[in-house]
Amino acid sequence: MEAEPKNKRKVVTFGEVLMRLSPAENRKLQQATHLDFFFGGTEMNVAASLAYFGVPVQHITNVSNDIVGDAAIATLRKFGIEVSQVKKVDHPLGIYFLEVGSAMRSSQIAYNRLHSAFANITPESVDWEEILEDADYLHWAGISPAISEGAYQTLKKGLEIAREKKIVVTADPAYRSNLWKYGRKSQEVLAELVDLSSIFIGGVNEINEILGSDYPFEEEGFIEGSKALLQAHPSIEKIFDKVRTSVSSSWQKISGRAWNGKNYLTSEELEIRDVVDRIGTGDAYAAGVLYGLQHFDDQEVLNFANAACALKHTHVGDANLVSVEEVLEVVSGNVSGRIKR
Amino acid sequence: MEAEPKNKRKVVTFGEVLMRLSPAENRKLQQATHLDFFFGGTEMNVAASLAYFGVPVQHITNVSNDIVGDAAIATLRKFGIEVSQVKKVDHPLGIYFLEVGSAMRSSQIAYNRLHSAFANITPESVDWEEILEDADYLHWAGISPAISEGAYQTLKKGLEIAREKKIVVTADPAYRSNLWKYGRKSQEVLAELVDLSSIFIGGVNEINEILGSDYPFEEEGFIEGSKALLQAHPSIEKIFDKVRTSVSSSWQKISGRAWNGKNYLTSEELEIRDVVDRIGTGDAYAAGVLYGLQHFDDQEVLNFANAACALKHTHVGDANLVSVEEVLEVVSGNVSGRIKR
Amino acid sequence: MEAEPKNKRKVVTFGEVLMRLSPAENRKLQQATHLDFFFGGTEMNVAASLAYFGVPVQHITNVSNDIVGDAAIATLRKFGIEVSQVKKVDHPLGIYFLEVGSAMRSSQIAYNRLHSAFANITPESVDWEEILEDADYLHWAGISPAISEGAYQTLKKGLEIAREKKIVVTADPAYRSNLWKYGRKSQEVLAELVDLSSIFIGGVNEINEILGSDYPFEEEGFIEGSKALLQAHPSIEKIFDKVRTSVSSSWQKISGRAWNGKNYLTSEELEIRDVVDRIGTGDAYAAGVLYGLQHFDDQEVLNFANAACALKHTHVGDANLVSVEEVLEVVSGNVSGRIKR
Amino acid sequence: MEAEPKNKRKVVTFGEVLMRLSPAENRKLQQATHLDFFFGGTEMNVAASLAYFGVPVQHITNVSNDIVGDAAIATLRKFGIEVSQVKKVDHPLGIYFLEVGSAMRSSQIAYNRLHSAFANITPESVDWEEILEDADYLHWAGISPAISEGAYQTLKKGLEIAREKKIVVTADPAYRSNLWKYGRKSQEVLAELVDLSSIFIGGVNEINEILGSDYPFEEEGFIEGSKALLQAHPSIEKIFDKVRTSVSSSWQKISGRAWNGKNYLTSEELEIRDVVDRIGTGDAYAAGVLYGLQHFDDQEVLNFANAACALKHTHVGDANLVSVEEVLEVVSGNVSGRIKR
Amino acid sequence: MEAEPKNKRKVVTFGEVLMRLSPAENRKLQQATHLDFFFGGTEMNVAASLAYFGVPVQHITNVSNDIVGDAAIATLRKFGIEVSQVKKVDHPLGIYFLEVGSAMRSSQIAYNRLHSAFANITPESVDWEEILEDADYLHWAGISPAISEGAYQTLKKGLEIAREKKIVVTADPAYRSNLWKYGRKSQEVLAELVDLSSIFIGGVNEINEILGSDYPFEEEGFIEGSKALLQAHPSIEKIFDKVRTSVSSSWQKISGRAWNGKNYLTSEELEIRDVVDRIGTGDAYAAGVLYGLQHFDDQEVLNFANAACALKHTHVGDANLVSVEEVLEVVSGNVSGRIKR
Amino acid sequence: MEAEPKNKRKVVTFGEVLMRLSPAENRKLQQATHLDFFFGGTEMNVAASLAYFGVPVQHITNVSNDIVGDAAIATLRKFGIEVSQVKKVDHPLGIYFLEVGSAMRSSQIAYNRLHSAFANITPESVDWEEILEDADYLHWAGISPAISEGAYQTLKKGLEIAREKKIVVTADPAYRSNLWKYGRKSQEVLAELVDLSSIFIGGVNEINEILGSDYPFEEEGFIEGSKALLQAHPSIEKIFDKVRTSVSSSWQKISGRAWNGKNYLTSEELEIRDVVDRIGTGDAYAAGVLYGLQHFDDQEVLNFANAACALKHTHVGDANLVSVEEVLEVVSGNVSGRIKR
Repeated sequence: MEAEPKNKRKVVTFGEVLMRLSPAENRKLQQATHLDFFFGGTEMNVAASLAYFGVPVQHITNVSNDIVGDAAIATLRKFGIEVSQVKKVDHPLGIYFLEVGSAMRSSQIAYNRLHSAFANITPESVDWEEILEDADYLHWAGISPAISEGAYQTLKKGLEIAREKKIVVTADPAYRSNLWKYGRKSQEVLAELVDLSSIFIGGVNEINEILGSDYPFEEEGFIEGSKALLQAHPSIEKIFDKVRTSVSSSWQKISGRAWNGKNYLTSEELEIRDVVDRIGTGDAYAAGVLYGLQHFDDQEVLNFANAACALKHTHVGDANLVSVEEVLEVVSGNVSGRIKR
Repeated sequence: MEAEPKNKRKVVTFGEVLMRLSPAENRKLQQATHLDFFFGGTEMNVAASLAYFGVPVQHITNVSNDIVGDAAIATLRKFGIEVSQVKKVDHPLGIYFLEVGSAMRSSQIAYNRLHSAFANITPESVDWEEILEDADYLHWAGISPAISEGAYQTLKKGLEIAREKKIVVTADPAYRSNLWKYGRKSQEVLAELVDLSSIFIGGVNEINEILGSDYPFEEEGFIEGSKALLQAHPSIEKIFDKVRTSVSSSWQKISGRAWNGKNYLTSEELEIRDVVDRIGTGDAYAAGVLYGLQHFDDQEVLNFANAACALKHTHVGDANLVSVEEVLEVVSGNVSGRIKR
Repeated sequence: MEAEPKNKRKVVTFGEVLMRLSPAENRKLQQATHLDFFFGGTEMNVAASLAYFGVPVQHITNVSNDIVGDAAIATLRKFGIEVSQVKKVDHPLGIYFLEVGSAMRSSQIAYNRLHSAFANITPESVDWEEILEDADYLHWAGISPAISEGAYQTLKKGLEIAREKKIVVTADPAYRSNLWKYGRKSQEVLAELVDLSSIFIGGVNEINEILGSDYPFEEEGFIEGSKALLQAHPSIEKIFDKVRTSVSSSWQKISGRAWNGKNYLTSEELEIRDVVDRIGTGDAYAAGVLYGLQHFDDQEVLNFANAACALKHTHVGDANLVSVEEVLEVVSGNVSGRIKR
Repeated sequence: MEAEPKNKRKVVTFGEVLMRLSPAENRKLQQATHLDFFFGGTEMNVAASLAYFGVPVQHITNVSNDIVGDAAIATLRKFGIEVSQVKKVDHPLGIYFLEVGSAMRSSQIAYNRLHSAFANITPESVDWEEILEDADYLHWAGISPAISEGAYQTLKKGLEIAREKKIVVTADPAYRSNLWKYGRKSQEVLAELVDLSSIFIGGVNEINEILGSDYPFEEEGFIEGSKALLQAHPSIEKIFDKVRTSVSSSWQKISGRAWNGKNYLTSEELEIRDVVDRIGTGDAYAAGVLYGLQHFDDQEVLNFANAACALKHTHVGDANLVSVEEVLEVVSGNVSGRIKR
Repeated sequence: MEAEPKNKRKVVTFGEVLMRLSPAENRKLQQATHLDFFFGGTEMNVAASLAYFGVPVQHITNVSNDIVGDAAIATLRKFGIEVSQVKKVDHPLGIYFLEVGSAMRSSQIAYNRLHSAFANITPESVDWEEILEDADYLHWAGISPAISEGAYQTLKKGLEIAREKKIVVTADPAYRSNLWKYGRKSQEVLAELVDLSSIFIGGVNEINEILGSDYPFEEEGFIEGSKALLQAHPSIEKIFDKVRTSVSSSWQKISGRAWNGKNYLTSEELEIRDVVDRIGTGDAYAAGVLYGLQHFDDQEVLNFANAACALKHTHVGDANLVSVEEVLEVVSGNVSGRIKR
Repeated sequence: MEAEPKNKRKVVTFGEVLMRLSPAENRKLQQATHLDFFFGGTEMNVAASLAYFGVPVQHITNVSNDIVGDAAIATLRKFGIEVSQVKKVDHPLGIYFLEVGSAMRSSQIAYNRLHSAFANITPESVDWEEILEDADYLHWAGISPAISEGAYQTLKKGLEIAREKKIVVTADPAYRSNLWKYGRKSQEVLAELVDLSSIFIGGVNEINEILGSDYPFEEEGFIEGSKALLQAHPSIEKIFDKVRTSVSSSWQKISGRAWNGKNYLTSEELEIRDVVDRIGTGDAYAAGVLYGLQHFDDQEVLNFANAACALKHTHVGDANLVSVEEVLEVVSGNVSGRIKR
């Protein structure tokens, strides 16, 4: 399994950039006097990981027109993400507070994003034609159309133009029940957007949400659900899913499974017994899928995405700042963590 | 000048509690990985300072129904502020980001408060009758009615009930041009609320804003403006103003002046050449006025408020965590900062 | 199992408040330049946990009459503990230094408490009649009578008045061999105080210490010892014990067992493989028992106390800052630590 | 004085990127357990400041082929500097340690740069033709040719190609006596490179070093020296100098003076009484000159550069992360540091 | 003025080592979650400064027999102080808490030292004969005999043996009114110990305390008082005093004056406008006197001690970690703080 | 097994002191703004550990003649290592950067040591005759002769003089493939130096490197290889090896094995599931062997060294700052990590 770049055309990602604020050392907010901060957001995390894999990537979003928005842009630049089309608007950047759990104590998140810069995005403000001109992939996640009518319309327009340009659209339509407050029904919207996509990153939960079905979580359910999804949404060619066993906040097991229209594929299970940061692990998986699709066969894609996801658990922050080499080493079975001098 | 408590009935304050997020050591946000945080807000700062002066004080506000709101309440409790009537609602706590300037570099603030928990307060949610039952003072500032119709209505209702109960109302109607976005005109609203107040903490700017006048900043202007304000708003008995010379971000000079209906009074100028934190210094002054009104004659009130304001510049945070003894020592002319063992 | 508050009368706790000073990140003191600090103390930890469970609670103690004592009081207030009867005296606050171990390395503690503010408490300085007026519970631990004659006499007086008022007394008579330096014999004193109590939080070690017996640690020993204790000290109605398996500094297993005069009860074992902070876990258990006694049957008390104890291992500090909901979720078997959004 | 961008062609800078390691809070290295780090270097600081002024800028250098070099590149990207031609080589990144002085205590610097990645740069590794294709300015400083034969040759080649392309070359030939260890004579080399430049950023010290002259520091000396330099090196058109009065480590006064071939110009003196960071202030001045040359007349260039230099003293780090607006405000005479909301 | 070492025999110091605990960044203790710590103590500070001047020095004290005492010893070793005769005893190390003031806000100190390891020192535990075998100087301060009978007796024994061995005894008998609680009268004790000393580091306050006199602070008073002291205590040969003007917590002016039995000498005044740490400045002066006595004439001693004292204000910690070269540079009039590369 | 000191003559160690720079909390360098630092180096780590075991120990090295070298020396002093023969030279101290891995993510190290102070050491600068005068042991590691001809020659000279003086030489000839750049062949040099040594700390890898053999890792290979080594290098009497199973960065298992010329010995396996710091664990083992050789029989040496090695994993830094008592407790089988009060 060798990483030979097949092209140099860019991946485009679309979605909110949030500031994460979090007390260090598993403290409760009430025990802290300062908060570590990171910029993240599901699609931006994908962009960052791809940039660290050496893939040209551009992110489309709105940020606040203040020192916080400036810092968000600087961080994207630092990650190596193209930011020339990020707009600054007079609404605050979305924020979330994270208290990091441990053992049987859950992490807790408090959001402040309902009236954010991104929620106020409009289709008119994004020049999709120009942005997608030299792109090969467009990636979206289910959280964006859940935020506001503007975000939904902007994304839809992008997907339509991507279709015209025959750009591969990857969808990570994870459902978030505590969003979707602006009036649209999630099922309808997600189904519509999936029809504009060709790679589906998700599993039984997402399939059931979109089809209104009730497939069980187990292997059989995943295969049957995948088949049903491909039938109902024929634009979808492949489905890549991530299976997580959450023993505790600090101990996670993950593996990948996929349906590529013909075969059911699975990866080995990887175990992280001392989770450093669980945020953005799904995004790390998605970035692994995108990188994989450009370089590998389906089984290798699955292995690569799963290893990338595992590695995200081992360092702090929303974005997976690891290299292709580090991922391939885990894929090759070396998980001993020997010091590299 | 001796601090003999004259009564033990409480002061009530009303206003937003914000989380302040700020990089340490004069860093720019882009240079930081963590942010110090404090809870503050103009009226809450007054409450905290009064609590450290030993005055019973209760604060009325809304906070978010999440870990951030819980931490805000815990901080008020820590300060010794009565919080039994603070409500938790499903809107985020207001936030501001502060980059601390130095020398000729200005501090920069970015707000995220437009849709906050406090902006969503309603008159129905505050039981002013009960709250004011055992109160002697009600304090408000010009920022609250500037935020939302609900904040304005809630405050107005409180002032009206205070009037019925013959509670002293202290007003700090400082004008903030970048608020007042919900439709009301600032001049009209402030004038109406000043008519429900008896102590005016402010100066020529505030008088001009409320009267639509154009008095100059100098002594004569202050005296003439004060007279005009007392004539136009006869409920006001006394005016306490603070004069600041901002040599640089790090070097401030402050003094007090007052008009008590009969006399023009001034305090000595105090100089802070190595400002630690400039936020909340006006609120420290207001708290000094309130404490002073309970214990001293007008000249002493002015001296006390000015010294309290100066001391706020010497420690970090929005609230002035100094004791009556520390203030009186500065009033007495001892500014040498000798170590207390 | 549902948490329906049965009353609103307060719990009173009595004991020393210590400042804990500890290098972060498992450092040795010699490797550090700063120390994290917390205020704790076995009975105060119970008070804090109860406050976070929503129980009205008052703590009785002496603190130093200086900036350290002020900070201790502010922390108690922050936790929501009633502090109106905490006295400030001219003796230093007790201190302990903690080097946090890891794996096979033990944590090390150095105390500085022998001449502390609390050690100088006297029965005359505590108005037990007033304090217990509106109380339902009085909680004490074996560490307090071990510190000084004054602490012992003050506690004894409180227990006697509690008996008169028919207040439930909960005892956590854990024995500390390195205290008891002021002349009294621990066995005698503890026996006397247990006679004034009705709930016994402890196990075979404590029973053997008080009875001078030698019951083995295993189930049979616990049951026999419990029966013997109830016979010797008929005021005791129930015994709640905690069983800990210390695999390493970082890996602990805990479970609860109880004798309620009729039945031997046990809880499930909970495992914490990445201990964040082991201090105060016994106090978290005791607070769980107290909360449980107000709301649940004996088996539920045991389950609740055990889950509360487990959760204390997952965050730093002496006090267990978790909610009833968090405890009940662990009781219900959910230890997967899924993120709460 | 208005900042109207006249062109969008880029500035190119060439020089070493160093990692600065420094204890916080004026600590001595022996008192610290951690060190703050920044990436800086005289020409890179110019690039960063220009990027924050909105000027397109590319930096040419070598960094180490390891995690330190990667972090250096990420920081340049964060600043908005084009890094596509930065090379990674198997030599370590240069480092300097800084103990920050205060009052009469001097800052102390220890270097580790003699065998750095940049010292190993070679003319063959830099494609000056391509780099300068779309450039309007090339900036160099006297420290680069002092480091190694390779650095000298690489720079000289760049200057020669710049001359061919009629690109404006700005020179900041500050002399560092503790470098120049590889064999060349500083006077010879600097004179040669100045002959390839048209803007001279420096003063009497630099003129004397290059001419072997002995002009006095005062006004007359500067004017006479400037005239002599222009005569000896006719490619030079203008000289911009910075005058510093170092009252103490913490108290600096700076002003600018210039000779543009016809007139002697001076700026007002600016005073910083509470220096936050003195490193990179000369580079901030140079960046001010470069920005100024693109937008202003000579007097305005001087004012702008001087104000930019002053602002660098007010925040930590090697690079001047302020905006054109912040500089223009100081130029306009507003040094009061009022909070920007 | 040149620093030519005249001998290599050691200086011995005797006194308590305290742990200082202090919130960073001028915070109040209530605003902090961690405390910076340092080990200090007036005589130990003298020892540390002498060690950084290259003088062999041994410190005599008791520390606690725990991790805190071990860390204290390790710090002394780090400073280069001989610790072979430091004893570990079963009493806690003394502690003090420091809230650092700013501008007109005073620093506040809270002590915990009354029952410390040092307070429990006994003459029997110190082998003065061996310790003083190869010593040239023995230094003591007024704080040690103020702590306990044991400390007083131990010191007196040391001074008596020093007299026998003709070792120079330097006395810094600064009076601390809040100590002296064990029964002895300060005037009597200090007079007795001064009779065993030959160099007096102190001024009018100390003279008046010891003589029961009332000399005024000004020059004439110092001279008259000095003469009187030499008459009453003929063992004293020279008096070195430090004059401090405390403009504010952050702004100090210091100068030295001396009486050497024949002449009244004064040094220039040095000004520190941005004090980093005021603790230990008197000890830095004393160390300067001791170093000076070994190398310089009286005027030079005064200049050196005053410059050493000034430099202590510029870095954090109790001990003056500067070199002879740094002091001599200030003596020579260079206070500009230019960076040393 | 009891630790009875058999002599008080010193151990001498020779090797480079490096500054380690590392982001805290498993951060990647790009995510950090500050770096924790430690001084370490394989032979110096042995010295530090021996000092904490109470063994007199002297370290021989060069450090930089700047603030970094001064801090290195101060740290050695703090550890209790004799530093009188450490030389300061005009080359920088060696540095390494460490990104700490976690789970399957490897730690990464970047070195900057090729032209360090130590690499420039020369045999002439070390007075081995005097240094070894009162020594019983001289310890070296394979990294020193790999750095430079000077380091190799200096070491060789020391070993030759040690042989003359009949001092026991312990060798830890671990091979580092990325060094050995100055021209010598590792096999030749190591073989020559092993011929001057009598204790071999290493295993199959080292034996194969020196003999050019290919023994397998397993027990049989170790025994056969050991026999071959003793035959080829008859000065070697005993071989102590450490067996590590690296489950992940965070989970390590270690055990010891030895060949003493007659018997094959093994220790129990110790498991560390939450590694705090893996650096210096081999050096902790070597220090355990040296201490053991002075006090125990061979089996006890193995047990002691293995337990010492395990304990090094539990705290941060390069050196093993644990006591003999802590090691012996692990040897005795107590790995439960109970709190020591």
